[in-house]
Amino acid sequence: MALLHTRLTRALGLRHPVLSAPMAFAGGGALAAAVSRAGGLGLIGGGYGDPTWLEEQFAAAAGERVGVGFITWSLRKSPSLLTDVLKHRPAAVMLSFGDPRPFVDEIRAADARLVCQCQDMGHVMDALEVGADVVVAQGAEAGGHGALRGTLSFVPEVADHIARHAPQTLLLAAGGIGDGRGLAASLMLGADGALVGTRLWASTEALVHEGHHRAIVETDGDGTVRTTVADIARQIAWPRGFTARIRRNAFTERWHGREAELEREIAVQGPRYRQAFTAGDAEHTGVWFGEAAGLIDAIEPAAAIVERMVDEAVLHLQRYGGATLTEGAATSASQAPR
Amino acid sequence: MALLHTRLTRALGLRHPVLSAPMAFAGGGALAAAVSRAGGLGLIGGGYGDPTWLEEQFAAAAGERVGVGFITWSLRKSPSLLTDVLKHRPAAVMLSFGDPRPFVDEIRAADARLVCQCQDMGHVMDALEVGADVVVAQGAEAGGHGALRGTLSFVPEVADHIARHAPQTLLLAAGGIGDGRGLAASLMLGADGALVGTRLWASTEALVHEGHHRAIVETDGDGTVRTTVADIARQIAWPRGFTARIRRNAFTERWHGREAELEREIAVQGPRYRQAFTAGDAEHTGVWFGEAAGLIDAIEPAAAIVERMVDEAVLHLQRYGGATLTEGAATSASQAPR
Repeated sequence: MALLHTRLTRALGLRHPVLSAPMAFAGGGALAAAVSRAGGLGLIGGGYGDPTWLEEQFAAAAGERVGVGFITWSLRKSPSLLTDVLKHRPAAVMLSFGDPRPFVDEIRAADARLVCQCQDMGHVMDALEVGADVVVAQGAEAGGHGALRGTLSFVPEVADHIARHAPQTLLLAAGGIGDGRGLAASLMLGADGALVGTRLWASTEALVHEGHHRAIVETDGDGTVRTTVADIARQIAWPRGFTARIRRNAFTERWHGREAELEREIAVQGPRYRQAFTAGDAEHTGVWFGEAAGLIDAIEPAAAIVERMVDEAVLHLQRYGGATLTEGAATSASQAPR
Repeated sequence: MALLHTRLTRALGLRHPVLSAPMAFAGGGALAAAVSRAGGLGLIGGGYGDPTWLEEQFAAAAGERVGVGFITWSLRKSPSLLTDVLKHRPAAVMLSFGDPRPFVDEIRAADARLVCQCQDMGHVMDALEVGADVVVAQGAEAGGHGALRGTLSFVPEVADHIARHAPQTLLLAAGGIGDGRGLAASLMLGADGALVGTRLWASTEALVHEGHHRAIVETDGDGTVRTTVADIARQIAWPRGFTARIRRNAFTERWHGREAELEREIAVQGPRYRQAFTAGDAEHTGVWFGEAAGLIDAIEPAAAIVERMVDEAVLHLQRYGGATLTEGAATSASQAPR
């Protein structure tokens, strides 16, 4: 078996250039530990800052070397959470969706790698300004929160910017990477590896209701939508510019495009959303996955997912996909069949 | 110099696995011929069906082997246009944005390859049903008209569907492909080549006002938006589900999100849009390019663009991007630095 080494694997001491996305609620300690044991680096999802849940998840990681990720604007409301989490000596702390500045010094002092997830070039400039060790360029295909740039054009643009301004910074691609083809493509685009959400959400270790897991297996990549209706229903006031990609279902059909009406009916619709979520109903709540759903047809252990992703990427890279390289001017246009 | 051969180059007799997008107004005969001469296949943009313009563009192609592309729902209003164009014996006819069925027999009878551009899995099923020779999987990053799927996850999903249902069908990736990294990534994702719009819009041969060319050089990939306001201003009734990616500028800032108001003011705003477009004003009209703008810093001849794209793709494929492959279990997680 061949291994795929990049600047990322060397800098972070990994076998595979794969990090798991710190998915709120779904990305617990068991998933993070499984990804790390498989040779990547797992990140626990700090979510909206429930300290008890986070302690439980670090306990579930059982001493495995993992990292953690926060929703930056939310962390700002309870900064002591970072202090608490750093006691577990995470290998990396990822900050997404907000200004990283207030947290940088404390993360560095704890000797954790600083990972900044970026959705546009402005975010990338902020990340380089604070000296991020790793930039994640997240495209709109991603499940859950994100913004508008597509992964395929965003990653090389970020790679060029990093090369010009802070060439030692590592770059991960995120958004829509569901198998080894996506990982191989990420490397071609200039990334040093991939941050994987949706594909690992569909793992046995993810903290996802089996009703929601059944839904992703049945859903193709067209079956998601970027929307604010899940956040409205949950009454979580996300900053403008960020939306969440979730499954298209009865809930999104009813409310997407009728956001003001949903706000007016929140006293009824809020509890309904939360009950359906807890019950694993896949139609009347947010079901949190991205366009990579179209590449997923089974819920599997995280280790199997990571290992197959790397094996498949290596195979594609060795074969150049379906291309062959030949020397010199072979077929010329004038010899072409019509 | 190495050449990149794929099923596409073999089937269509090309030196390079690159087609130019049949961009309305911008993709004339000179651009199509230049792309074909460079070893790809250039497609003239059939646009909204101006027969005189199309005749001029085939004349400008000066006998070079080129193809043509149509906006399918628009072609339906003047189907004789297809008959006229087929007299020029185009190598391929691409149909986008609508039901291909009414045109398939005539295209086949003229011995042209049938290319169907698809924006979602439903379109792909339609394309396979009519026996398309080539499917183009177009992601939302693309300039001009398109829909919502991201290129990075859409292409492998389409590749899987084709492999199961019509494995002889060729697959092109489109949307956000601005250089050799995007072409190499497309091959990793399972495509046989790429359809390139924005990067060739920014060529000396494209029929684009120099004011608009200056704008793309100055714009990064964040500086575009998917919207309906350009079509409203032009009073072109596009079917629901399709939007156009154009430059973010004073025009989109003013009207995006205020579509009903723009419709009410169309008597004033329509002429204003058209005058600004003709004048090459890059602020008060639609400027038609996609997210690949962030990868473009010069207007160049199409041949130079195509050749560099292929050279760069070959280089990345040969080097695996920034990755190296090693045999066996090298660094283990337990030896990892913190």
